[in-house]
Amino acid sequence: MGGLRLHRVGGGAGGGGQPLSSDLDFGSAERGVRAVLRPAPLLEAPSLAERVGRPVLLKLESLQPTGSFKVRGALARLEALSAEERTRGVVACSSGNHGRAVAWAAARTGVAATIFLPDWVDPVKLAGIRSAGAEAVLAGPTYDQAEARALDEAKASGRPFVSAYDDPWVIAGQGTLGLELADGPAAAAATVVVPLSGGGLAGGVAAALRHRLGAAAPPVTAVSADRAAVMRASLAAGRPVELPEETTVASALAGGIGLDNRWSFPLVRDEVAAHVTVTEHEIKDAIAMAYNDLGLVVEGGGAVGLAAVLGHDPVPPDAADGAPVVVVVSGGNIALDTLSDVLREHA
Amino acid sequence: MGGLRLHRVGGGAGGGGQPLSSDLDFGSAERGVRAVLRPAPLLEAPSLAERVGRPVLLKLESLQPTGSFKVRGALARLEALSAEERTRGVVACSSGNHGRAVAWAAARTGVAATIFLPDWVDPVKLAGIRSAGAEAVLAGPTYDQAEARALDEAKASGRPFVSAYDDPWVIAGQGTLGLELADGPAAAAATVVVPLSGGGLAGGVAAALRHRLGAAAPPVTAVSADRAAVMRASLAAGRPVELPEETTVASALAGGIGLDNRWSFPLVRDEVAAHVTVTEHEIKDAIAMAYNDLGLVVEGGGAVGLAAVLGHDPVPPDAADGAPVVVVVSGGNIALDTLSDVLREHA
Repeated sequence: MGGLRLHRVGGGAGGGGQPLSSDLDFGSAERGVRAVLRPAPLLEAPSLAERVGRPVLLKLESLQPTGSFKVRGALARLEALSAEERTRGVVACSSGNHGRAVAWAAARTGVAATIFLPDWVDPVKLAGIRSAGAEAVLAGPTYDQAEARALDEAKASGRPFVSAYDDPWVIAGQGTLGLELADGPAAAAATVVVPLSGGGLAGGVAAALRHRLGAAAPPVTAVSADRAAVMRASLAAGRPVELPEETTVASALAGGIGLDNRWSFPLVRDEVAAHVTVTEHEIKDAIAMAYNDLGLVVEGGGAVGLAAVLGHDPVPPDAADGAPVVVVVSGGNIALDTLSDVLREHA
Repeated sequence: MGGLRLHRVGGGAGGGGQPLSSDLDFGSAERGVRAVLRPAPLLEAPSLAERVGRPVLLKLESLQPTGSFKVRGALARLEALSAEERTRGVVACSSGNHGRAVAWAAARTGVAATIFLPDWVDPVKLAGIRSAGAEAVLAGPTYDQAEARALDEAKASGRPFVSAYDDPWVIAGQGTLGLELADGPAAAAATVVVPLSGGGLAGGVAAALRHRLGAAAPPVTAVSADRAAVMRASLAAGRPVELPEETTVASALAGGIGLDNRWSFPLVRDEVAAHVTVTEHEIKDAIAMAYNDLGLVVEGGGAVGLAAVLGHDPVPPDAADGAPVVVVVSGGNIALDTLSDVLREHA
C-alpha cells in the first residue's frame, strides 16, 4: 500500500536504519479510533474558494470531542496499553489539547491520568482536563520544562509517558485523520494543509495518506507559526534542535520536539512535501475570518492552515485544475477573552 | 413516495381543499440546492448522548454559507424566478438570517435584492446582508411591521416578495435538509428535533422526510421559544393568530406567521408529530453548552433544539432502543457581545 520508506534512528534522528513502516500500525489505530469517533466533518467553504480559485474543504477537527484532533492519538495510545499499564495509569505533558484528549480517553477506559502543563495553558483547556477527572499539574513557565518534569514523574512512578508527538501509536492515531481524508473527495486534493508543531499530526497524516493511496497520495503542506517553529529549525539543521520558547496566539503549537526525537522528526522530514510559516498577525486574521465568515471557533494553533491559505499560496504549480485544497482545522479550544481580544483587534 | 396529504386553503388556513403535494417540488429544490451546497455536516455529540441515553446527531446548518439553513430556501426560490423577474430583483423581509441568505443567493445569480428588517436585527446579520451587496432597510420596531412594509414595497415596485416561510419554493428548499437526513443515519432517528417559527423549516423537513421515506419517516419534534410562539398559539386556535412581539435571545424565531398564511400553517399542523416549548433560560444554557462543550457558535434561534434535548425529553416512548436523536442546529449568527453576555451570565 505505498509502503513507508522511513528509517528509524538510534538515539537521535537524522541517520539511516531499518524501516519504520511496520511500527506505524494504522490498521489498529483506525479500528481503535473508529470504534469511538465518527469521521470529522469535511466542510466546503465557498468564501475561501473565491480567494483561492479552487474548492476549499475544511476538515473540522475542532469539532471532535475535547475540541481537537488530539483525541485520535490519545485513543490509539491508550488502546495499546497492557492490562498492567492500565492499572498504573499514565503521565503526559501538553500545552493543553493533548492533555485534554488523554484525560478524556483515559476516563472512558477507567485509566488514571496525570497531565503536566506549562503555566500559560489556556484556561479552557485546563478546565477541560480537570472536568474529565485527570490530575493537572502546572509545571513551569515553558513547555519543555513541563515535559522534563512529566518524564521524570513517569520514570519515578513507573507509569507510561504518553508523548504528544514522538510515539508511533500516537502518530498512527493522528494519521487516522489522513485515512478519513483518503476515503473521500480529499483524496484528490491539490494539497492537504496541516498545522505543524511536534510533527505527530503532519507526519502522521502524510504517512497515512501514502499508506492508503500510494503514489497517488496528495502532497502535504505543513504550516508552522513563526513563533513556534522548532521543527522547521530542526529540518534546516538536519537534526532536532531547541529554540527559546516565545509567546504565541498559536499556543497549541508551542514547545520543542525533543533532542532525542526518534519518530516525528524523520517522519516530517521524509513525508511532508512543502512548508509554510505564518505570522501572529496572519493567524489572528484567520481566527477572525473563521468566526465572522464561517461561524467557526478556531484557536490559534488550529487556524494556521487557514492563515496559509489566506496569505500564502500553498497549491503546488502542477496541481490539477479544480482539485480542492484541504485545510485541517485542528482545534477550537480558545478562551472567550482571547477570542474577543482577537476580534476587537481585527475590527 | 409517501404522498403529501396537505390541503391548500383559500384566503386563510384551516379548511379543506385540493392537495398541496404537487406544489412542493422537492425534486427541483434538491437539484437547485445540491448544485451549490454540499450536505451540511452531521456531527455526533457524545457529551449529549450521555445525558439522553442514546446517540445524538447534530445537523450543523450553522456552518452553511450565510450561517443558517435559510440559504436552502433562498436558493430554491431564486432558482424559480422567471428571466423577467430576475431583471426586476426581489424584496424580502427577515429577522436577519433569511435576508442574509436571500442577499447571498441573489448576488450569486446577479439579482438585486432589498431586505426589510426590524430595527432590532443582530448587527452580524445586518453586516452580512450589506456585505453581500443587498439593500438593507431598517423598517420598524417589530418584525410584523417590517413585513408589512416589505409587502407594500413589493406590490408598488412589481418585484417578487420572497417570503421567509409561507412560500412553496422556500418550504421545499428548507425541506432539502430533510432529504439529506433521509439519505443517512438520521433516517432511522427516534425523532428529528427542529426549531419552529414561521414553520417553513419544521414543515418542510417533516414533509420532505415523508416524501422520501414514506411511513418509515422519523417523527419531527418542533421546538418553539416561549417568547416567540405564534405558530403554537395558532395551532391551539386552529387558525393563524397574531401575538404581541416579545424580545427574545432567539431573535431568529420572532415574528408572526401571517393571518393569511396558506402554506406553512397547514403543513406544520398536519406534518409535525410533537411540540416542545423552551424558555429564555434554557436557550441561553444551550448556547453556553454548545460553546463550552461542543466548540460551536450557535445563535439563540439555532439553539432551541439543543435546549429541548437538554431540558425536556423529545424522544417518543415507542422509539427503538439506540435510535439516535437528530437535532437541527439551524443557525450561528450571533454578535460576539451577545455571546459574551450569555456566557458570562451562565458562568
